[in-house]
Amino acid sequence: MSGYEAHAGELVADCRLRAATDLFAHTWDPVILVGLLGGARRRGVLRTEIGGISDKALTEALRRLLGHGLVERRRYAQAPPRVEYDLTALGRSLVEGPLRALGDWVDAHGDELLEASGAPDDDEW
Amino acid sequence: MSGYEAHAGELVADCRLRAATDLFAHTWDPVILVGLLGGARRRGVLRTEIGGISDKALTEALRRLLGHGLVERRRYAQAPPRVEYDLTALGRSLVEGPLRALGDWVDAHGDELLEASGAPDDDEW
Repeated sequence: MSGYEAHAGELVADCRLRAATDLFAHTWDPVILVGLLGGARRRGVLRTEIGGISDKALTEALRRLLGHGLVERRRYAQAPPRVEYDLTALGRSLVEGPLRALGDWVDAHGDELLEASGAPDDDEW
Repeated sequence: MSGYEAHAGELVADCRLRAATDLFAHTWDPVILVGLLGGARRRGVLRTEIGGISDKALTEALRRLLGHGLVERRRYAQAPPRVEYDLTALGRSLVEGPLRALGDWVDAHGDELLEASGAPDDDEW
């Protein structure tokens, strides 16, 4: 508790926290990171495993994750060339730390979150 | 490790994970949650402490957080009426779990994240 609460005031003003929460701003990105937790995947395999993601959305998400240094792309010289995506050390640390904590929280509180849906009543404002 | 990796396949397809990551989709929302960690705040105090947030953005963020059941609004019958915002139990669990984990990760890896900026080279594609 100590470190976090002591830093609360700084965190509020910390641009790095905003940069980090932006990592979750695109719905699919965390899903792809979790999908790569089991090891390197070819693009098509990843798309099938995730389900419901369009080809365009997958391309955009992988480009963002490569740009953030969370995912790496490996090209194997064979015919036809094989290309796989894998977590970098940085990406793995994000999945195994904050994203795991979020998954645990969802397990415990996801139903409460979905129950408390909708905007507050207008007469509250 | 066991629980999380065993659930990786399910998490990928779990709409609740997507609902939870959406909580971080709006840049200011996590910042406000952390700002309320120290206790209930009046709107103006909160805005001053956060810094850089417009009145409109604060209104929209509070409305979302109330709608998700993460923040509650308390009105005290006095003249003039006093209104304060505070974390609900659900909101506090989000801050003290996943958001704290994200803050710890930023402390450890924030610089790496900022260094690895930009999109991958075009010839990678």
